[in-house]
Amino acid sequence: MRKALCFASLLLVATSAHANEGQWQPHQMPEIADQLKQSGIRIAANDLADLSQYPMNAVVGLGYCTASFVSPKGLVVTNHHCAYRAIQYNSRQQHNYIQDGFLANTLADEVHAGPSERLYITESVTDVSKQVTENLPSEPLKRYYAIQDNRKALIKECESDENYRCAVSSFHSGLEYYLIKQLIIRDVRLVYAPPMGVGAFGGDIDNYEYPRHAGDFTFLRAYVGKDGKPAAYAEDNVPYTPKSFLKINAKGVKAGDGVLVAGYPGATQRYRRASELKFAKEWLYPQQANHYQKQLDIIDRMSFDNEALAIKYAGQVASTANRMKKLNGLMDGFKATDIVGIKEQQQQAFSDWAKTNAPAVLDDVAQLEKLLADKRERQQTNLFFDNAQNSAMLKTAANLYRWAIEQQKPDAEREPGFQQRDEKMFVARLKRLDTSYDASMDKALWLMELEAYQNQPHRVAELDAMLAEGDDKPLEERLQAMYTLTRLSDSNTRLDWMNKPVQAFQQSADPFIRLAVALYPVTNEQEKREKTVWGELSKARPAYMQAIIAFNKENNKPVYPDANRTLRISYGTVDGYMSADALYKQPFTKLEGILAKNTDVEPFNAPKKLLDAIKAKDYGEHMVSELYPQKQSFLCRFISCDSQQPPFNSVPVNFLSSVDTTGGNSGSPILNGDGELVGLNFDSTYEAITKDWYFNEEITRAIHVDIRYVLWMMDKVDNAQNLIDELELVK
Amino acid sequence: MRKALCFASLLLVATSAHANEGQWQPHQMPEIADQLKQSGIRIAANDLADLSQYPMNAVVGLGYCTASFVSPKGLVVTNHHCAYRAIQYNSRQQHNYIQDGFLANTLADEVHAGPSERLYITESVTDVSKQVTENLPSEPLKRYYAIQDNRKALIKECESDENYRCAVSSFHSGLEYYLIKQLIIRDVRLVYAPPMGVGAFGGDIDNYEYPRHAGDFTFLRAYVGKDGKPAAYAEDNVPYTPKSFLKINAKGVKAGDGVLVAGYPGATQRYRRASELKFAKEWLYPQQANHYQKQLDIIDRMSFDNEALAIKYAGQVASTANRMKKLNGLMDGFKATDIVGIKEQQQQAFSDWAKTNAPAVLDDVAQLEKLLADKRERQQTNLFFDNAQNSAMLKTAANLYRWAIEQQKPDAEREPGFQQRDEKMFVARLKRLDTSYDASMDKALWLMELEAYQNQPHRVAELDAMLAEGDDKPLEERLQAMYTLTRLSDSNTRLDWMNKPVQAFQQSADPFIRLAVALYPVTNEQEKREKTVWGELSKARPAYMQAIIAFNKENNKPVYPDANRTLRISYGTVDGYMSADALYKQPFTKLEGILAKNTDVEPFNAPKKLLDAIKAKDYGEHMVSELYPQKQSFLCRFISCDSQQPPFNSVPVNFLSSVDTTGGNSGSPILNGDGELVGLNFDSTYEAITKDWYFNEEITRAIHVDIRYVLWMMDKVDNAQNLIDELELVK
Repeated sequence: MRKALCFASLLLVATSAHANEGQWQPHQMPEIADQLKQSGIRIAANDLADLSQYPMNAVVGLGYCTASFVSPKGLVVTNHHCAYRAIQYNSRQQHNYIQDGFLANTLADEVHAGPSERLYITESVTDVSKQVTENLPSEPLKRYYAIQDNRKALIKECESDENYRCAVSSFHSGLEYYLIKQLIIRDVRLVYAPPMGVGAFGGDIDNYEYPRHAGDFTFLRAYVGKDGKPAAYAEDNVPYTPKSFLKINAKGVKAGDGVLVAGYPGATQRYRRASELKFAKEWLYPQQANHYQKQLDIIDRMSFDNEALAIKYAGQVASTANRMKKLNGLMDGFKATDIVGIKEQQQQAFSDWAKTNAPAVLDDVAQLEKLLADKRERQQTNLFFDNAQNSAMLKTAANLYRWAIEQQKPDAEREPGFQQRDEKMFVARLKRLDTSYDASMDKALWLMELEAYQNQPHRVAELDAMLAEGDDKPLEERLQAMYTLTRLSDSNTRLDWMNKPVQAFQQSADPFIRLAVALYPVTNEQEKREKTVWGELSKARPAYMQAIIAFNKENNKPVYPDANRTLRISYGTVDGYMSADALYKQPFTKLEGILAKNTDVEPFNAPKKLLDAIKAKDYGEHMVSELYPQKQSFLCRFISCDSQQPPFNSVPVNFLSSVDTTGGNSGSPILNGDGELVGLNFDSTYEAITKDWYFNEEITRAIHVDIRYVLWMMDKVDNAQNLIDELELVK
Repeated sequence: MRKALCFASLLLVATSAHANEGQWQPHQMPEIADQLKQSGIRIAANDLADLSQYPMNAVVGLGYCTASFVSPKGLVVTNHHCAYRAIQYNSRQQHNYIQDGFLANTLADEVHAGPSERLYITESVTDVSKQVTENLPSEPLKRYYAIQDNRKALIKECESDENYRCAVSSFHSGLEYYLIKQLIIRDVRLVYAPPMGVGAFGGDIDNYEYPRHAGDFTFLRAYVGKDGKPAAYAEDNVPYTPKSFLKINAKGVKAGDGVLVAGYPGATQRYRRASELKFAKEWLYPQQANHYQKQLDIIDRMSFDNEALAIKYAGQVASTANRMKKLNGLMDGFKATDIVGIKEQQQQAFSDWAKTNAPAVLDDVAQLEKLLADKRERQQTNLFFDNAQNSAMLKTAANLYRWAIEQQKPDAEREPGFQQRDEKMFVARLKRLDTSYDASMDKALWLMELEAYQNQPHRVAELDAMLAEGDDKPLEERLQAMYTLTRLSDSNTRLDWMNKPVQAFQQSADPFIRLAVALYPVTNEQEKREKTVWGELSKARPAYMQAIIAFNKENNKPVYPDANRTLRISYGTVDGYMSADALYKQPFTKLEGILAKNTDVEPFNAPKKLLDAIKAKDYGEHMVSELYPQKQSFLCRFISCDSQQPPFNSVPVNFLSSVDTTGGNSGSPILNGDGELVGLNFDSTYEAITKDWYFNEEITRAIHVDIRYVLWMMDKVDNAQNLIDELELVK
């Protein structure tokens, strides 16, 4: 082990590999061709830039994740957690695919992934900056609506073919807009998913953690009509023939190798001002963490001896705990590295440059800072009022009232979330209250918020009026009366309200509806104000970004835009990292690590046949003896190292690289220097959580499933020979 | 960082360093002279064997820890946690030395460490095996008493000089006995202790953890009467002049260096039978963990909303949680390594050898296994009855009754714990109930045990009788009545009972005293049975150990005895380790790690002046640039490594080595190959917890305070120039 480590280190030194920041638009690849080559990427930059060519036309979106074609018959691979909904959709008491996994031995055995599963293939990306931003009105609110209308018009035209989904995405904070046109595959089927104890081995406990041992992969298949065109699910649909599909390199990668990741990263904030980071670090995150903790404490206390209540709120507890972990990661990251200080230095350098090179932008910066400061002040002022609406019952009433209001407009003019296309989701949310709501818990959580609101200076008359009603009694009693009186706790009553007119709400005696109606003018005014600010920022931010790009251009540094759910490419190096003082994390984990972590208790419950195969060292052709290469004779000629080096001698499970990813990159293919699939991205490390603000190349690592583990599982554990035969393996 | 790691690894390969098992008796050192030399120990084995010479005559015991002389004026260094009682003894509201640390600038400022602090200097170790084991009776109980009487007689003779403490210690399970004669220093003073936020930085959270950043050191001083002889504390006592004192090597050690540790390890079980390990692994540990968890759950539930109760039981919770951590470490260790399997293989090899070489021992082994099996069966049978006595109130009553019974005998014949010398401790324990006992909690804990007892088959008539009393009422109510009725909850009443005769107990109506009197014959019978088994084992175990030694001798392998609180020497290598799959722990931590861990909240609350010194990089002459040596030109001639290697460039805080330690080795001096002090032992890693059963050289590491951190603290943080001047520094 020691020696393995040694050679990894040597290699890294030899190649002077560096983590490489940047989620690049494919068309930017030629701009960074030199860096790519230096990092060991042999595939031509021009090829990567072409969405109609290998490998980029094999990369597909899932809406919230990324995937890729891996066979001529439309076989697709992504993460287990990205396909979870499809697995859940097909699971029954008698065949629990979540618990036991699923494998279709023939096409006929493949099952429908569900009515809402889609694959999106980006076919074109067109610069529409001019169409969106030309001749905009100056008045901020009008400007906001003008931009939205320009975008809507472009989308409508593009979506005239129902087989396409289109979006007009903002780049560099509105400096540029691109029209993204994506083919929609509407018939997606489940092909092969490992059991939860493999796909999510380690579960939430291991979220953001490394060393990791998750087999976070699942295979799907794209189906189309017999005419080869996208179609809704039908039994006699046929597998889709993708324009190309990824070759799989069964030899995988070694430490120090260059890799690429292609996918749909969601959102980053790399060009934010230091003042924005400072606010997040000093106020927003601590405040949110404190608030979440209060909620968790209440839920914990109330459900201490009440299992039914604990189950109802288990989902909220899990997601709040996850958010807490991310917040802690953010706060720890800000503590470990003075990111605000780094940003301030960068800003200073920019300002110094701008003084002589682009003095006008300094006014934009001043305006931007003013808008941001105002926004922060409003956020702080309104915090307690905003939180005071944190009652599931009040939110339900407010949503129903808003629904009624929006129904008065033509569908196209309604706010997102309240259009015809949102109805199903809206109904589902109303129904879901039955399993995730309890009046006593909701009351306790709301009481905490209302008491906090009462104890601070910012007053909202409409809410104060409600709090003043019957205030000879304790607030808790009055809330109790509201929960007793309301009929909204009944599922059918809630659904009925979806069909009632605005007037019915305004005349209702239901206490929650009354409060929702009373608060609507206040929240509506808030919303309008935020749209106005958006309109103002749509002038200041693009101007600032334009200057930033010019500033970098002078140093020959291309600038990539913040992530925005559009197709990007990042490159990096397979590499470990120093997780803390004296704590080094190697880039590869191995099968034996699963045995060590396994407890047979969820989430560390790998299936017996997998454990047995590891115990039997049944590695087959997937065994790797050296992962930390350059165990070169040239070194061992001088030190007696060979004889003692324990070889890796196992199958790699997960590995780390320095590629630049964020949420949405889940399932993204990890490609070797030749553009062959060697892994699937699925997470990043705890120390890397701050990367959405600042990419620290020393510690930012993404975590990937090693394709050799996937192939070993198929071969030695799940006997998926039919699928292996379908793949194009480079050995 | 990467390069540092690399060179560490290379070095380890180059020296083919191995962790070295063995807590050797000093007189054994010549037997292992070759291994010592190979490990880089340059001091002669014969010198190490001589207790009257440097360095062994500078090593002293504290009774529960180890320390060493470091100046001609009796200055002694040990761990902060070993001196904690002395620091606590001198702390007041107005000068809280625990929180703020303590430094005496002159001899006159040094404060008395407390009436119970002692230093023990081992002056002679004499083989008395013959005197203890010759002509023993065969009947087991008589044999038990004969051995104890032989030991007592030797001790009495040896202790005729009141300045000496003597012990007759059993080696190799009673195969050998040695009379240990130790000079007692009775006037010990506190000289220099860092604040808790340094000495116990990381506290219980970091217990058994690494990377570690604890400044776990404290300086004491030995004082004697003006005649140079040990004396009780008196203001005009003078510093003791030790026969020798350790030189301190201010350059410390590097990765791969050989080191020694000398000290008083408490207890190991390295020669136990596989059946004993199997029982611990499969029954004892899981059962204890389960039992502790039940106790913690009850305490947690009862004190959930009751802070006063939480405070009363905080001590019990902390110590139970610590025991849980150790148990988890044991269970995890047994899971990670098949120690039982390894022992079974070793036993098989021994048995195969014995069949032809020492066939008689096979009968002893069979007898040993039978005795052990019987003992295990009794332990399992009696478990619930034993636990059913887990009521603080019942234990108090039972102890008081036993006190009365023992008082009927001459002092020398009383059982340990009930002699005149134990009275103070006995009283203190009775008083302590006021702050650590609550009737409702004690009742809840006891109820859990009694219900478990009721639900199992093994009956004890005397306890059943009590449980049957008034059994028309629920047990909880009846227990409540006992707690209401008893007068033992009053401190003075408890103390009064210490002076009452046996008859008073037998006539008492106090429900707990009645129960204690009723149960006494049962527990007394149990005790007698265990003494009988001890007598039987005193034949089988030594015979077995004698054969084990002979077996090893054939392979030229000297055998060290299990630890037994006597002076031992171990050697090893400064070395990191693989803590888990893909997780490597480097052997040195640095100052910056303190900054990263510091939260200003206990136990991660380093003092501001220390943090400021780190931030200012005020390393002074203590800075180390290379700790992972052999950054050899011979290597860097072939790879371009030098330019990129980030040097260590800090002060090392803690370090790891492969020396063989256990509880009691706290405070032990870590010596370099020349016998100069380079660190203080204070803990071992989580993965090493199983080492008391089995020394796994791959993962067993002890954790030391680096002497360079101690010197840096003295120089740059606490301005302890007076003490630095007193030391003999090798630079």
